[in-house]
Formats: sequence, structure tokens, C-alpha cells
Amino acid sequence: MPLSMYSASVPVFKRQLTAMLGWLDKAEAHAQARKFDAANFLQARLAPDMLPFVSQIRIASDNAKGCVARLAGAEIPKFEDNEASLDELRQRIRKTLDYIASVPAEAFDGSDERDITLTVRNRDPFTFKGAFYLNHWALPNFFFHVTTAYALLRHNGVEVGKADFLALGS
Amino acid sequence: MPLSMYSASVPVFKRQLTAMLGWLDKAEAHAQARKFDAANFLQARLAPDMLPFVSQIRIASDNAKGCVARLAGAEIPKFEDNEASLDELRQRIRKTLDYIASVPAEAFDGSDERDITLTVRNRDPFTFKGAFYLNHWALPNFFFHVTTAYALLRHNGVEVGKADFLALGS
Repeated sequence: MPLSMYSASVPVFKRQLTAMLGWLDKAEAHAQARKFDAANFLQARLAPDMLPFVSQIRIASDNAKGCVARLAGAEIPKFEDNEASLDELRQRIRKTLDYIASVPAEAFDGSDERDITLTVRNRDPFTFKGAFYLNHWALPNFFFHVTTAYALLRHNGVEVGKADFLALGS
Repeated sequence: MPLSMYSASVPVFKRQLTAMLGWLDKAEAHAQARKFDAANFLQARLAPDMLPFVSQIRIASDNAKGCVARLAGAEIPKFEDNEASLDELRQRIRKTLDYIASVPAEAFDGSDERDITLTVRNRDPFTFKGAFYLNHWALPNFFFHVTTAYALLRHNGVEVGKADFLALGS
């Protein structure tokens, strides 16, 4: 497949979000084996002033659906941010996967040169061309939150490894 | 700038590696203020069976130079992996930046459809088309190690924040 705004975004989000479903399964199994409440993972943090695990997953989901909607010129679907269990986080990831699969590849045509305007808390809005937005904002942000979620599980004893991160077999 | 194999790789690595130089400066300042040896950061780990900070930086550097060389059809420069201080890590990052800046954009033309073969420890070699390699291997790996390095500094009290991660002002 040649490089395109579609191939550089939707399949990347799809693979990574699918991989994350597997991490949540491993986290659940780890909690069951140790007989603790798997929901304890939701508030895990790497530093007291960093966002907890539940937020890392929510934001990774937001990054994926926000990027896809913006590039396709569609409205960004709103999710509730009320997940209280690993299972509800899995449902959120599945909803994100369903959404990004629903957007036709043709909607991305020409999006590399389209203006994308972002409003960020406490800052002036940014306007980027689509290709810059994808490469320098959406993907770095997505992988930041995905990797932080992974690091939190790893730090808390869940047996995930690099193969689970990359999920190339999936 | 339209999306291209060059614009989706070299400028992304450049921005992120440049941002990392700033994180190392903040780590150094933190160590000086607390009067501990800044080299202590090099062996910091998020889990006892994860690679330490020094390896995260080295591998992020390897991911960047390896990706650029493979896509450009050039030989991958070898670095020594002997850094023993934050300053030596900064030098490695600068060498990586110098290398990726030295490769002409034209060398990436057509690389999305070229075969890239990777040999990975304990596995059969992978062969990907260039665009797949960039999107599903090189960038995820790079951001994995970059974010893990950031998380280690954050976990150990260094005052880096999301703006330092994204470094959009730079």
C-alpha cells in the first residue's frame, strides 16, 4: 500500500488499539491471579502529578478518533469518560475501533494540505496543515498515551512485552 | 508540505530528538539542585526486567538512524553504546541528528513501495514494504522508547511536561 494520509493513520490506530485490548486482558488475568480488584489499575500513576491509567486510555482513544474525524472533515464522536472498570475501558476501545473503521478512506484524500485547527486548554488555537498535524501532533500524542498506559501496566507487574506492544502478529 | 516518506520520518525524528536534548538538560539541572550524580538516571528502570534509561535513549537513536538509513537505502551508521553520562547521551543524540540531516530527501523517493528486511533477535527476518515499516514498526518503536525515557525522568522527579514532550515551539 503506498503512503497516504489514510494508511498512515487508521491502520496504525487500529493495530495499536487492538493490541491494547490484549494488554487489558493480561492486566485482568494478573489481578485475578493475585486476587486484587482489577479496577485498582485505573488510578495507577507513574508520578503523583501525572494522569492515571484510566485517563491514558481515554486520551489515546480521543487522539485516535479526533485525528480520524479531523482528517476526514467529520464531527468528532463524544464519549462519556465514565469508565470504571477494565471491561468498560475495553468497550471504549472497541467503540473507537468501530468509529475509525466506519470512516471511508476517500474522505482522507487531500487532507495532507487541508488546514486543521486545534483548540488546546490555556493556549491560543493551533492551525496546522493535515500532514503536519498527523506527523507532529496526532501520532506523537497517541503514542505518548499508549506507551504511558503500557508503562503503567509493566511498572505494576503485568506481563506485557514488546511483542504485545507492537502486535505485529495481529 | 505534502505527506511523503521523508516528511513523515526525518522531521519527526528531528523534532523529537531535539526535544530530548531539553529533557536531558532538565534532568541535569534537577540532579544539580538535589546534589546527586546525574549519571544515576542512566540505570533508572520502570520495572526490574525493563531496559534502563540509557538503553531507552540509545535505542531511540538507533530507531531513528536505522529507519532513515533503511528508507534511503544507505548503510546504518554504528554507534558505540558506551555512553556513561547525560552529556555523552546528548552527544549521541546530536550525532543522530547530524546523520539524519545529512541524508537527502530525494533518497526517500519510492521508498514506500520498496522492500525493507529486518533481522530481529530470536525471530525469523521480517520483510515489509517501506510505508508499512515506517508506520507500523519504525515510528511505534521510536515513540515507545522516547516515551519510556520521558516516563523515567518524570517518575524520578524531573520537571518535564507535555509541552517538553511535543516541543512544538522548537
